[in-house]
Amino acid sequence: MTRQELIDNIRRKRSFLCVGLDTDLRKVPQCILGEEDPIFAFNKAIIDATAPYCVAYKPNLAFYEAEGVKGLAAFEKTVQYLKERYPDQMIIADAKRGDIGNTSQMYARTFFETYGVDALTVAPYMGEDSVTPFLGKEGQWVIVLALTSNKGSLDFQLTEDKEGERLFEKVIRKSQQWGTPENMMYVVGATRGELFTDIRRVAPESFLLVPGVGAQGGSLEEVCRYGMTADCGLIVNSSRAIIYADSSERYAEVAAEKAREVQQQMNEQLNTIWNSQQK
Amino acid sequence: MTRQELIDNIRRKRSFLCVGLDTDLRKVPQCILGEEDPIFAFNKAIIDATAPYCVAYKPNLAFYEAEGVKGLAAFEKTVQYLKERYPDQMIIADAKRGDIGNTSQMYARTFFETYGVDALTVAPYMGEDSVTPFLGKEGQWVIVLALTSNKGSLDFQLTEDKEGERLFEKVIRKSQQWGTPENMMYVVGATRGELFTDIRRVAPESFLLVPGVGAQGGSLEEVCRYGMTADCGLIVNSSRAIIYADSSERYAEVAAEKAREVQQQMNEQLNTIWNSQQK
Repeated sequence: MTRQELIDNIRRKRSFLCVGLDTDLRKVPQCILGEEDPIFAFNKAIIDATAPYCVAYKPNLAFYEAEGVKGLAAFEKTVQYLKERYPDQMIIADAKRGDIGNTSQMYARTFFETYGVDALTVAPYMGEDSVTPFLGKEGQWVIVLALTSNKGSLDFQLTEDKEGERLFEKVIRKSQQWGTPENMMYVVGATRGELFTDIRRVAPESFLLVPGVGAQGGSLEEVCRYGMTADCGLIVNSSRAIIYADSSERYAEVAAEKAREVQQQMNEQLNTIWNSQQK
Repeated sequence: MTRQELIDNIRRKRSFLCVGLDTDLRKVPQCILGEEDPIFAFNKAIIDATAPYCVAYKPNLAFYEAEGVKGLAAFEKTVQYLKERYPDQMIIADAKRGDIGNTSQMYARTFFETYGVDALTVAPYMGEDSVTPFLGKEGQWVIVLALTSNKGSLDFQLTEDKEGERLFEKVIRKSQQWGTPENMMYVVGATRGELFTDIRRVAPESFLLVPGVGAQGGSLEEVCRYGMTADCGLIVNSSRAIIYADSSERYAEVAAEKAREVQQQMNEQLNTIWNSQQK
């Protein structure tokens, strides 16, 4: 999916929501466990219910790998289902890979060619040759971890170097020499609202994938105030607060309600940039 | 495998070699491709041939994931085979995982419980709560990326903060507050020979997993001169230079010869610490 297609989808759906498919068999509703492939059955129901309100899905590989071969098969089926049924949804594999060049190449082949996702999250610790193998054809995206939403992000990402540049800023600045706003985004946690201003200073145009709204406590309004651009420039992810909002047989319906609530808040935020442009 | 068991194995086998199982169907000998499970068949032959000369095996997950469900099944079989047949070999899953706490927990469950490996490589960018979920039972190891062997390691790992501490040193220093030399090692590339002295200043006792000898050009002698401790303190990995040393039907035999050559060099290095202790 190209950047322009993504922006068009956001405009059309009045949403920049990504639904995180952190599908955990210990958390899905009881009623689904009798299905032949309960992970896929859950995902399919969640996708069908929430698709009108979002522009992306983000399966978190950890949850699929934990179920071994069956889990991976469910991941593959989920990606296939999305591609066939909802080709306007961006598929983000949240796998946080990154290794020496020849190994990153293998991961790139797996995710972009074998599975055919649109985007992959990548950890930048190993530098340029661990990231660039993921930069491939048009419409394929690398999403580099910059400033994450967890407590541990304070350990290294905020370290200032001698010139006063913090590690997350250095990661964003250097990686923009490897990719462009057409094929590279950054993970920036919603729990760091005030730092979005600093991020926009180094990455004025790039799309940011923002986890941490919902279960992790970040504020959508703050993220938009400091992080939104004229092209929106944000994909905000919510996982647990949507997919596990209800544990009864109504789980998909309730997930849709929650996604719709977020979409309506997003619509208001989008009005602030796109209505004013149209005046 | 506990630290003491690892040291005992190194003493007994006069080796601190780890054989990297970067099994790539495009590189294995033609003769193996007719097997029902060529990845496992190749691994089994390599393991049977090289086991006398090494103390660990390191399957690189990228190569298994690239083959999808079949690849993962071959990984699982390889781990099972090692556990049953060669219980004195440490099994290191080279997966470079690391995510927010609840996700790292899922990865930990997968690798330590589902697959039952001894050790897992972890990327430190996301800090404490991305690493500590991997610290589990006695004998389970987290191997944190510190200073890697690739060119991109220069991009961020050597960045000095205001106090002059480099990022890789900070990673080692801080992570020692989370784990101990009984359950935490560090990845340090062999191509950084001269920096081992600095690493030993911050991690005097920790075992280091050292890739980059062989195909990547690092020197075993230099690594030992600067990095070896009274307990050896090193596991040196070689992948391509051993497993792809020959592409004929003699591949396993040649792999054994290559592994034995490295083991003999290691024996000499071990003599320098253990003979002098016995005097």
